Amino acid sequence: MNAITLTTDFGTGSPYVAAMKGVILSINPAATIVDITHDVPPQDVRYAAIVLEDVAERFPEGTIHVAVVDPGVGTDRGIVYARIGRQQFVAPDNGLLSRLAHRSAPESVLRLSRPEYWLQPVSATFHGRDVMAPVAARLSLGLAPKHLGLPQSGLVMLRWPTVRVDEGGIHGSILAADSFGNLVTDITAGMLAKYPREKLRVRCLQQTIEGLSTTYGNHSPSTLAALIGSSDRLEIAVVGGSAAKALGAKPGDDVLVELP
Amino acid sequence: MNAITLTTDFGTGSPYVAAMKGVILSINPAATIVDITHDVPPQDVRYAAIVLEDVAERFPEGTIHVAVVDPGVGTDRGIVYARIGRQQFVAPDNGLLSRLAHRSAPESVLRLSRPEYWLQPVSATFHGRDVMAPVAARLSLGLAPKHLGLPQSGLVMLRWPTVRVDEGGIHGSILAADSFGNLVTDITAGMLAKYPREKLRVRCLQQTIEGLSTTYGNHSPSTLAALIGSSDRLEIAVVGGSAAKALGAKPGDDVLVELP
Amino acid sequence: MNAITLTTDFGTGSPYVAAMKGVILSINPAATIVDITHDVPPQDVRYAAIVLEDVAERFPEGTIHVAVVDPGVGTDRGIVYARIGRQQFVAPDNGLLSRLAHRSAPESVLRLSRPEYWLQPVSATFHGRDVMAPVAARLSLGLAPKHLGLPQSGLVMLRWPTVRVDEGGIHGSILAADSFGNLVTDITAGMLAKYPREKLRVRCLQQTIEGLSTTYGNHSPSTLAALIGSSDRLEIAVVGGSAAKALGAKPGDDVLVELP
Repeated sequence: MNAITLTTDFGTGSPYVAAMKGVILSINPAATIVDITHDVPPQDVRYAAIVLEDVAERFPEGTIHVAVVDPGVGTDRGIVYARIGRQQFVAPDNGLLSRLAHRSAPESVLRLSRPEYWLQPVSATFHGRDVMAPVAARLSLGLAPKHLGLPQSGLVMLRWPTVRVDEGGIHGSILAADSFGNLVTDITAGMLAKYPREKLRVRCLQQTIEGLSTTYGNHSPSTLAALIGSSDRLEIAVVGGSAAKALGAKPGDDVLVELP
Repeated sequence: MNAITLTTDFGTGSPYVAAMKGVILSINPAATIVDITHDVPPQDVRYAAIVLEDVAERFPEGTIHVAVVDPGVGTDRGIVYARIGRQQFVAPDNGLLSRLAHRSAPESVLRLSRPEYWLQPVSATFHGRDVMAPVAARLSLGLAPKHLGLPQSGLVMLRWPTVRVDEGGIHGSILAADSFGNLVTDITAGMLAKYPREKLRVRCLQQTIEGLSTTYGNHSPSTLAALIGSSDRLEIAVVGGSAAKALGAKPGDDVLVELP
Repeated sequence: MNAITLTTDFGTGSPYVAAMKGVILSINPAATIVDITHDVPPQDVRYAAIVLEDVAERFPEGTIHVAVVDPGVGTDRGIVYARIGRQQFVAPDNGLLSRLAHRSAPESVLRLSRPEYWLQPVSATFHGRDVMAPVAARLSLGLAPKHLGLPQSGLVMLRWPTVRVDEGGIHGSILAADSFGNLVTDITAGMLAKYPREKLRVRCLQQTIEGLSTTYGNHSPSTLAALIGSSDRLEIAVVGGSAAKALGAKPGDDVLVELP
């Protein structure tokens, strides 16, 4: 039986999350439900898209990931089922799956259109509870996705900054800050693999970091360091502190890696 | 096997919550435990009573809801088992169940008095862990509630503002703000059903809203809107923002719906 | 099948926690995973050590407790498996288990050294996900701990203030504040058991409290009270408020109990 994960902007401790779990357990009392996060900043589809890209693939094949960051709830935006890589997703079609889909083309995308699998009546403001939760619960019981609706040809894709390489180096940007204040960039380990770590120079917001570290633990507190983080991305960190605060950085800020 | 939910004011991340889960799993290692919320404001019995009213019925029939908001712990306030509607509850008898019981008369209420089902020794300050958690775990294993104590004739009921209708309209009040800052009122969809939505006028704290919307997504950001929320209650919202902040509203504040 | 608990400083809502759960479920889809807390202050090994001491023993015998507060990740600090009392632990060997081990000598301690039980490749910065989570998942499936590595003779022990008794009374200190702001001390119920509660006098930060209460509920709001808390430790509380704020207290501050 496939597990179900939940990713929302409801806030940890929101009773809305519990309502979704109640709906799932009412349909499948044996469901395994895992919270990815409910602390997506309100309506921040981009932040959630990055979280899903980083975390979903850690789960067992076939896991059903429900993502509810849905500023357009009740409008004519669609709700989709998608299979991407080894994982399944149920989400509004608003870009939430666009980083995953950019990395690996979806194997199937269906637009949900079969109300017999939803909770009735469907509220105008909470499709996470009334549409997505019951659909996920039925999938976890083995319902074939093809019953949920008709195929559509793709997903709504958001524009993301692209990493650019020129004679000045690798030009990327800050994707997000994690809970420690480490700045996660869109420059991947693969892009840097052929250069000696100690010869790379990282520039961000007037700061320059010489060489890449292997881990936080090798430095004295307050050191500004660059390293390959646990998502295989270049990160900028302050040892024992917050790089996001120290640099005043925010998503979208430029990061440059000068090559040897 | 019935699931167990937890609703407390311990704070998300409190090790006290984990202690309760440890006690439950020590008695029933296969228990399904779901957090409703641990972010009830400290000792705010009224807030928790509203959460339970809104969320409990979403769970499967027979679910055991444990609620621990218990400023009187260790005094002679009772701890009760109650069956209300399709759900079971274990909670201090301090009003936590009074909104549920107001809506639907309890089928049975027992005062817990059988220490052989509790953890020993019982601390003076943590009956959630020492009395309620073990009782819930035993119920989830099939213990008949009648073994827990003797019937009592009712529950402690708190006074709640009542909704009043006169020639001026429907007079209700703010129940709570949700995590988005939407203001949830005690005026229900049913009270408004016979009027055309566009002809209703909502007044709250010097603000006037003309007509009811169907959803947030149809408005531009910062618009003040009134709509029927996901709990079938009238809500006041600021699109993409917080109505609680914009209006400076708090629980108990008056809301008036002027009828056509 | 033994349950797995998680204690980290990643912050509630961190996707890093979800990544660990994904790894565990990928190895053991039927695992029971319980959060103890993810709100350990960043890198505060001492705080987490106290939480583990208080909460771990509430869980069923054999429960596998994974603790990831790991400022030295990627350095040569070891990662250990330890059996202490009835519980199992997987954690960096940095003092996290030192309060538990001080109370009860570990029955076995092994240093993890068998990468075939880890996720590959192991990142330099997230051994919680790549080493500890997969090891815990395999233990929950029945892997014998002896396969994980070689025995080592003890654990890294941190220094903790000791409680001292002299003619002036019992000299202890503040261990931590809980989420209500109650100040938890290292003076235990056992140390006070032979004295009449009403004759004890508690002094902390210029404040004097006469006598020990049995519970919060017997006092009017804002009263400063001392009592034996749910972890069998002396606590200082403000009824309906925060003693931590009222006294401006912090871990390590002195507490004196004057004896009759």
